[in-house]
Formats: sequence, structure tokens, C-alpha cells
Amino acid sequence: MSFYLDYQSSKPVDPRVIKAMDPFFTEIYGNPSSLHSIGDEATDALEESRSKIAELIHAEPDEIIFTSGATESNNLALIGTALKNKNKGKHIIISEIDHISIHNTAKFLMKAGFHVSKVPVDHYGRIHIDKIKERISDSTVLISIGYASNEVGTIQPIQEIGTLCREKEIIFHTDAVAAEGLVPLDVQNDSVDLMTLSSNDIYGPKGLGVLYIRKGIKVTPQIIGGGQERGLRSGTENLAAIAGMSRAAEIISKERVKEVKKLQSFRDRLIKESLENIPRCYLNGHPEERLPNNAHFRFDGIEGESLLLSLNDKGIAVSTGSACSSKTLEPSHTLIAMGLLHEEAHGSLELTVGRFTKERDIEALINALPEVVEKLRKLSPLY
Amino acid sequence: MSFYLDYQSSKPVDPRVIKAMDPFFTEIYGNPSSLHSIGDEATDALEESRSKIAELIHAEPDEIIFTSGATESNNLALIGTALKNKNKGKHIIISEIDHISIHNTAKFLMKAGFHVSKVPVDHYGRIHIDKIKERISDSTVLISIGYASNEVGTIQPIQEIGTLCREKEIIFHTDAVAAEGLVPLDVQNDSVDLMTLSSNDIYGPKGLGVLYIRKGIKVTPQIIGGGQERGLRSGTENLAAIAGMSRAAEIISKERVKEVKKLQSFRDRLIKESLENIPRCYLNGHPEERLPNNAHFRFDGIEGESLLLSLNDKGIAVSTGSACSSKTLEPSHTLIAMGLLHEEAHGSLELTVGRFTKERDIEALINALPEVVEKLRKLSPLY
Repeated sequence: MSFYLDYQSSKPVDPRVIKAMDPFFTEIYGNPSSLHSIGDEATDALEESRSKIAELIHAEPDEIIFTSGATESNNLALIGTALKNKNKGKHIIISEIDHISIHNTAKFLMKAGFHVSKVPVDHYGRIHIDKIKERISDSTVLISIGYASNEVGTIQPIQEIGTLCREKEIIFHTDAVAAEGLVPLDVQNDSVDLMTLSSNDIYGPKGLGVLYIRKGIKVTPQIIGGGQERGLRSGTENLAAIAGMSRAAEIISKERVKEVKKLQSFRDRLIKESLENIPRCYLNGHPEERLPNNAHFRFDGIEGESLLLSLNDKGIAVSTGSACSSKTLEPSHTLIAMGLLHEEAHGSLELTVGRFTKERDIEALINALPEVVEKLRKLSPLY
Repeated sequence: MSFYLDYQSSKPVDPRVIKAMDPFFTEIYGNPSSLHSIGDEATDALEESRSKIAELIHAEPDEIIFTSGATESNNLALIGTALKNKNKGKHIIISEIDHISIHNTAKFLMKAGFHVSKVPVDHYGRIHIDKIKERISDSTVLISIGYASNEVGTIQPIQEIGTLCREKEIIFHTDAVAAEGLVPLDVQNDSVDLMTLSSNDIYGPKGLGVLYIRKGIKVTPQIIGGGQERGLRSGTENLAAIAGMSRAAEIISKERVKEVKKLQSFRDRLIKESLENIPRCYLNGHPEERLPNNAHFRFDGIEGESLLLSLNDKGIAVSTGSACSSKTLEPSHTLIAMGLLHEEAHGSLELTVGRFTKERDIEALINALPEVVEKLRKLSPLY
């Protein structure tokens, strides 16, 4: 029997989404670029999907550009904006705790002659607007701040940052992947110019992402070819996945509020029981401004990897941080940026719940964790 | 009732492929980067799929890099190689009739300071090795020639080009999308260094491609992030699609010879009946060195688009050229390169058959075409 508490790494696809994808494999298989009726049918489905996904974030359909995933969207947002606006300025601001695809893309831009400033976070992983203000210069063209941390779950003051960017006439990008489906996203309210979304993070198929590009914002395309997606992203459209993501968006629009209530009660229980039952166990991230599905701990005297493997032996799947960089031995850059010592960062555990989490998953963790922690501490030279 | 003769634009997914994908949506949903068993299971499936796809082209598993499709693979092959080797030379050779994603990527490289030569083709759309030799200089680092034309179906002398490149120590890339599943692909026999494949072109799902990169060939990654695919292509792996493409590769390995026989008999019938029954109808492309699924005609005094729409009225889906650029009013660059006049190029019709083509599709076309051509010619000021 297995218990999955690692929804931030990957999510199963909702069976209703699979059903929505099905016709696009064998029935509506046309290429939207074809001029015949079978192509037209594909075009209609493509545009209908685009509209539904636009609604999810309060955007216009033609502001939605389909990509192969969040990583590609983040590349297009950063590199595309930087290249397009390099005559206006070559300074970009990101945060210390952004996703590795933002950090590594920023490194690439630095090699290409751009300047990148990283905004620090407080002990809760939260950004303060003053720290952004201090870094803005005349040559700042883009600020990219993740909506929420995919590791510790801390939510950023996105609206405040959006307002600042609007005032300073700086393009504002947010990678909203960790937050989508969990908090209401509204590019108008939050004055967002570019927003990264991923299909799988709302229980759609993998291999599909979105970059919202506000009308009037120009980016240089990163994948070149037949000129699909208004010339901004070439390649035959992945219509089955797009229809799947559209259905996923529809479901989340209707069910988010109810679903989040459930996730939050699971998460609260994970936090409460762990903090109560395990000595020297601490919550990482902000106590209130955090994603409703995220419980992130550190334990004195324990290696996160040993914890992960011990829980895995009991059939419980958890994470020690971002799956996207978990195979390195480096401690999480997010936890280090929050001021944790290396040994504290190494002793961390991330639990994320999702749509298919059951009581039994929570029970399994709550029953196993104190015992596993105790056992590991007995073996630890650090404790 | 509808009749689909446009397999080059898009293919339905084989039901056996859909079945192979299914478990990856709801059961094997882990992230291969996760360290727990659910992640390991995903990693195992990923590597097993990679091996099966490698076999299809006689490659090693770790020479297979998954991308979001052929367009991205072509971008990575051209831009990635050009950037990585720019100190050795900045000259690239492509052909006049390559896919738009090759042509537009080459244009991008020209703006970035690279030099691009285009090899001409003969009246059949075939490249002569001497024309390549003439263009090679000390600064030539890459030759990229499509394996076969996705429009007129002409197959290029790939082995000959591969041998030349090996001799001259020039990296050789071929976009094999039009040919895959139809001719045996062998990167060893053909001395290919980089090969683009698409999942959908062997009846796998859209949104997935491959770039074969021979061991020792270095390319600069184009999508940056968590370092998946040995750092060459970041982004969470699209495992369902990868498992689908792997199954598609397995099917094509077993069934290609038999399938091609069927396609060829359909194609031969389309060619024979059209040339016999319609006056001033000519075959475009090479009579022998052509893809077994492709029949490409031109008709004096007719606009291809009117022909497409008239056939569409009868439920028959055809193409006038590459779907990837069909929404422009420009005549096909392939046909112009073959020496056709603009009005000849505009009077073209592409028929492509595939795995699910039935006798009735062929009958429908054969019955409708002479009548439609005659009707359009009566209305034509050109005839």
C-alpha cells in the first residue's frame, strides 16, 4: 500500500481530464493549421480551450500562449522579455527563492550581459516590498517573483509587487505554478504582465504549460518555426493536452473553494500533530501566508534524505524540497535564503496534499513520523 | 462521412498507444526526479521508453533527448550546434526545401551572425551531393538536410551526405520526421550525428519529439532549468507521452514492412488513376525515390486552395503543401525551389495516406477528383 504526500513534485491526472482528452487522440486529430473541416474542428477546439484557460486567471484568450510546460514558459518570460527590451535596459530582478528554472535562466542571461539582482526573503520565506524597491534602477526592465514557494509554501505579496511594477513601468512576471488551483489567480487585480502556469499542477496532463502575456507586452520567441501561437511559440499544437488543461481549469474554477477547505484541514492536521508529537520539530515557511496544501518541517539532528528513505520503506512518498533539483546533494537554496544553517536545511521534510489525498494518507504519516524521527535520531551523531 | 488523405499534417493516435499511455496518467504519476519509489517507478519507465525509441534508429539510449516536438528538436539541433561550435566556424548548410522550422531557425542564426548556405534541388526535389560539396568551406560546422520532403515526398541521399560529412568532419543533422515509420532509419549506417523525430508521425501523441544526439556531439541547451535530459533539455518529463511514443516505436518496428506495402499500393493507385483520368495532371517529386505514402500533383489552370475546398465539400481532407505554413498565401518554397512557376506551385495537391486509410478513402478521392478538376477549370480564367 502506498501513501502519496508529494503533490508538489507531480500530480495524477484527473479522470475527468483524461475523458476530455480522449476524443483528441482518435477523433478530432486534425492539425489546426490545415484548411479543411478536420483542421477547422481542431482550430475551434483549440480556441475554446484557450478561452476557458484565460477565464481561470481573468485574461483575454489571445493573451494565452501554450508552451510545453512551466520551464519553457519561464524561459520565454525571462529570456524573451530581456532580449526584446534590451535597448530599454539590461537589469532584471528575481528572488532568492525562485524555482531553479528561473535561477538557471537568470544565470544564462547574466552570461549574455544582463544584470540580475536577487531579492532576499525573511525567515518565513517572504519578500518585503522595500527590498524590491531598493534594487530598482533606471535600467530595470523585468521583475520576476514566484507567486508562492514550491518548497516552503510561502505566498508572496503579489498584488503589492504588481502595483509597484505598474507604477515604475517595469514588466512583472510571476511563476504561479505552485499557487495555481490553490489560490484565486487574477492578472487584472494583481497587475501581472506575464504569468507562468502548468497543466499538471491543476491535474491536467504533463508536457503543457501556459505563458500569459498581457496585450502590449512584447517578447522575443524562443522556439522558431511555423509561427503558431501568434508567432510567439512555433510547433504543432498539442491539442489533446490543451483540451485536457482546459477541462482541468474548468474543474478547478468550480471546485477550488471546496477542495482547498479539505486540503487545508489535512495540512493543519499534519502540522499540528507533527509539532505536538515530535520534539524539536519546527515548521518552515510562513504560518499564515502559506499554500493550503503545504506542510514543511525541519527536525534537529536528522538528514532529510534518510527521513525520506525511511518513510519510503513504509510506503509513504514525501519530498525534501523541490523535486526539480532533488538529485543534487546541495541543500535547498530556498531554505538557505531563509537563513537556515546547512544542517537545518538538510533536515527538512516537505509534505504536500492534493485532490486524491485520503484520511488514510494523513494517518499513515502521522503514525510513522514520530517513530522514524526517533529511530534516526538514535543513529545520528548530530543529536 | 469524411475521408482523410492528409496524414502528413497530422495523424490520429494508435489505440494501442493510448492504452500504453493510460497508466501514466493515474497510476505511474511520479516525477522521475523524486527520490521515493513512486519516482523510481517513473524513472524506470522513462529509461525503458528511451531504450525502445533508441532501438528504432539504431542508437544508444543515452543518445535520445526528449523534447516537446520536432520544431523544438530542430531548434536545438541548429541553434544548439551553432552556438556550441561557433569558435570552430560560423557556416551552416541547409537545403532549399527544408521544413519551415529549419528555414526560420536558420534565419534567426543569420541575424545572430552565422552564415547559411542553401543547397538547391533538382526538378524532382532531390539534392545532388556535388551541390553540397561546392558549398562546404573551412568554417562549415553543420549540415542539416531533411531526410525526405514533407511536401513532395522526395527522399534524399542521406547515407551519401552522412559519409561526406564524416569525411569532412562536419556535424550532420537530419530532420527525419517525414520519413519516420516509412523507411528504415539507422543513424549508424547513415552516419547521422543529430536526428529529429516526432512522436505523432509514428502515431504517438503530439507534444513530444526526440533529438538523437550522437555521443561526443556537443550542443548548447535551449531550455534551461532543472537539468533534466542530461542537462540538455530541462522541464519535468512528459512520461505519458514518452511511454506512448515508445509503444508507437515498438509497433512500427514490427509492422512497418507490412504497413508500407499497403500504403504504397494505395499511393500507387492514387498516382495511376489521377495521371490516367485527368488531363494535364502531373506528378510532383521523384517517381521512385519518394515516400511510400505520398502522392503530390499539380494541375494546369487550377488553384490548389479551390481544389482543397471543393474536395472538402465532398468530405475529403487533403493538403496543398505543408500544413505548418498553409495559412500564408505564399506558394510552397519547396515547389518553387524545384523550379515550378508560381502558378504551377499554386495548382498543387498533396495526398498522404496512413495506417487507418481504407479503400473507401482512396475510392472517394478517385471518384471526386476528375469531376472537381473539370468544374474548377471551367471557372478558371487561366485554363
